[in-house]
Amino acid sequence: MKLNIALLAGDGIGPEVVNQAVKVIDAIAVKFNHEINYTSALTGACAIDDCGEPYPDSTHEVCLAADAVLFGAIGHPKYDNDPKATVRPEQGLLKMRQKLGLFANVRPTFTFPSLIDNSPLKRERIEGTDLIILRELTGGIYFGERGRKDGGDTAFDTCTYTRAEIQRLAKMGFEIAMTRSKKLCCVDKANVLETSRLWRETVQDMEKDYPEVTVSYEFVDAVAMRLVQWPNSYDVLITENLFGDILTDEASVISGSMGLMPSASKGLHTSLYEPIHGSYPQATGKDIANPLATVLSAAMMFEDAFGLQAEADAIREVVNKSLAEGIVTEDLSGKNKAYGTNAVGDWLAKNI
Amino acid sequence: MKLNIALLAGDGIGPEVVNQAVKVIDAIAVKFNHEINYTSALTGACAIDDCGEPYPDSTHEVCLAADAVLFGAIGHPKYDNDPKATVRPEQGLLKMRQKLGLFANVRPTFTFPSLIDNSPLKRERIEGTDLIILRELTGGIYFGERGRKDGGDTAFDTCTYTRAEIQRLAKMGFEIAMTRSKKLCCVDKANVLETSRLWRETVQDMEKDYPEVTVSYEFVDAVAMRLVQWPNSYDVLITENLFGDILTDEASVISGSMGLMPSASKGLHTSLYEPIHGSYPQATGKDIANPLATVLSAAMMFEDAFGLQAEADAIREVVNKSLAEGIVTEDLSGKNKAYGTNAVGDWLAKNI
Ligand SMILES: CC(C)[C@H](C(=O)O)[C@@H](O)C(=O)O
Ligand SMILES: CC(C)[C@H](C(=O)O)[C@@H](O)C(=O)O
Repeated sequence: MKLNIALLAGDGIGPEVVNQAVKVIDAIAVKFNHEINYTSALTGACAIDDCGEPYPDSTHEVCLAADAVLFGAIGHPKYDNDPKATVRPEQGLLKMRQKLGLFANVRPTFTFPSLIDNSPLKRERIEGTDLIILRELTGGIYFGERGRKDGGDTAFDTCTYTRAEIQRLAKMGFEIAMTRSKKLCCVDKANVLETSRLWRETVQDMEKDYPEVTVSYEFVDAVAMRLVQWPNSYDVLITENLFGDILTDEASVISGSMGLMPSASKGLHTSLYEPIHGSYPQATGKDIANPLATVLSAAMMFEDAFGLQAEADAIREVVNKSLAEGIVTEDLSGKNKAYGTNAVGDWLAKNI
Repeated sequence: MKLNIALLAGDGIGPEVVNQAVKVIDAIAVKFNHEINYTSALTGACAIDDCGEPYPDSTHEVCLAADAVLFGAIGHPKYDNDPKATVRPEQGLLKMRQKLGLFANVRPTFTFPSLIDNSPLKRERIEGTDLIILRELTGGIYFGERGRKDGGDTAFDTCTYTRAEIQRLAKMGFEIAMTRSKKLCCVDKANVLETSRLWRETVQDMEKDYPEVTVSYEFVDAVAMRLVQWPNSYDVLITENLFGDILTDEASVISGSMGLMPSASKGLHTSLYEPIHGSYPQATGKDIANPLATVLSAAMMFEDAFGLQAEADAIREVVNKSLAEGIVTEDLSGKNKAYGTNAVGDWLAKNI
């Protein structure tokens, strides 16, 4: 197959980890006889430095023309503590999500048996954890009207959801649940928020179309607790944008494998694949960043965006092999030898 | 001293746990020679059943006239899955917070050495955890304009904050930090929300008034992670209403002592003291609910509302003694004998 991949490496460790994924993809291309065409484009702080705009139109064109986008990470500390900065890297992320219509962020959380003891949680609490949080990504308070009043002394943000936005996300949730254990949890704050009541109402109305799926409704505060207490009691969770932001990050640490968690953002145009970790500025250029989450995101890309299951499986297999053989970066090496980011990427590519 | 306490026992296990706190308060009154005047009033589902209103004016009058309010819990499952219910118990809670001006919810999270192994987290992650989350309680998206448009197909909620609201809460945070390790963390989502940018800006402006306090600014998603990873790295956290709702509940499970966590809601009029757990409907009337969180809330009440430190210490001491001697309810008894809610309350009162 001919595959066009847009590479948006971004900031911080983004370029380093994306490079390792490219090595692995190249090896897959050789083995399975694909022709890969990469197009790189800027986004985030590096795009602001280049042209003053964190998601330039030229980058958007590259994404639209691609079959899939492989994304690294964005963000730079120089923007973090400056509430008055008018252009921020994150705006690029939000603009990209909106312009590409990336309405569903799919974030699996699972355990790797060999890494389970890295978790802050006790082994018996997390064994068997295998859940997916489906986060709505182009609506809610992230994209509502916001601003200041009273000469700047009052600020407001608006959270808005339409029934159609909720249905679109929930449909994907029901469909994923059908391929798994047929359990869906709708996470909201319906005891307070009107948008949450619309979420609950809409999902309740859809239940009849999926009679095999058992749906539960839980408040976001209760889920924030239960995710730590009994993560393995969950299967598929659907939720709105801001709750999803908080819960996916919380969920990412329970498995002890945060450096390994991939994600997909599916949308109306080209879908996007990215590690869930951030740009990790302190590690930039040190050849210590763990590339596995990005490599596993590439596996999701082969599976979802290209429909190439064998290729996805081959990637996952080589990742498991690297873990089993201890070819890992310092975050996972414990008392054993740590490999550099590049060394891990090279090893993976060679062993595909 | 003459002390007027409003008892708002509420729903579910609320009345049972409040009763045990009353036994303890009575014992304190005898020992320290106080005269306690209790006035009970309805709130929550039981108030709706009684008069159709979850926080009746008569209850508000009782609270205003009291020196402190001791609160149980509210909520009933019959309202949870009915997004169209027009009167809900939680509305009573919100109305009460607003009418009493309870702008700051103070939620300590600490570990009890004897209970540390109940935590889902590993011992080495939580040892020494002793943090306070200060949640803004009368602003934000809980109290903004909300509603429907497009014949019900679009819902919206508005989050609003004023500089004065933020200053009021942050001032309390700085002051609490000054009495502790002088570390304050402002939790927001300033990379997306305008209200968060106002929070960050306002707290930054206040830093100069507390030169000894080291302030950090962290995004809510990062805090949701770090609370699970390294809870003992935090000291005092301040945050807005909805983030506080999620993070305080998350924090409550890390210590393994959720059934023991008290809270205070401080305000413009009478302050309120309550266990952080909910109404736990499944346990209602079974004499199994753990009363210690409510008893420890009474300790906070003596300390904060009445300025009676020796009385507060005496309550905490007897609670520690009950834990040491295993006079505990089934949630804490492990393989040993479990005591009933009432038996624990009686034992505490007798041992004051
Ligand atoms: C950087 C930020 C705007 C972003 C978000 O909040 O969506 C990030 O936290 C994420 O989850 O991808
Ligand atoms: C019941 C609900 C409205 C309430 C809240 O969200 O504030 C509760 O979760 C709490 O934290 O006291």
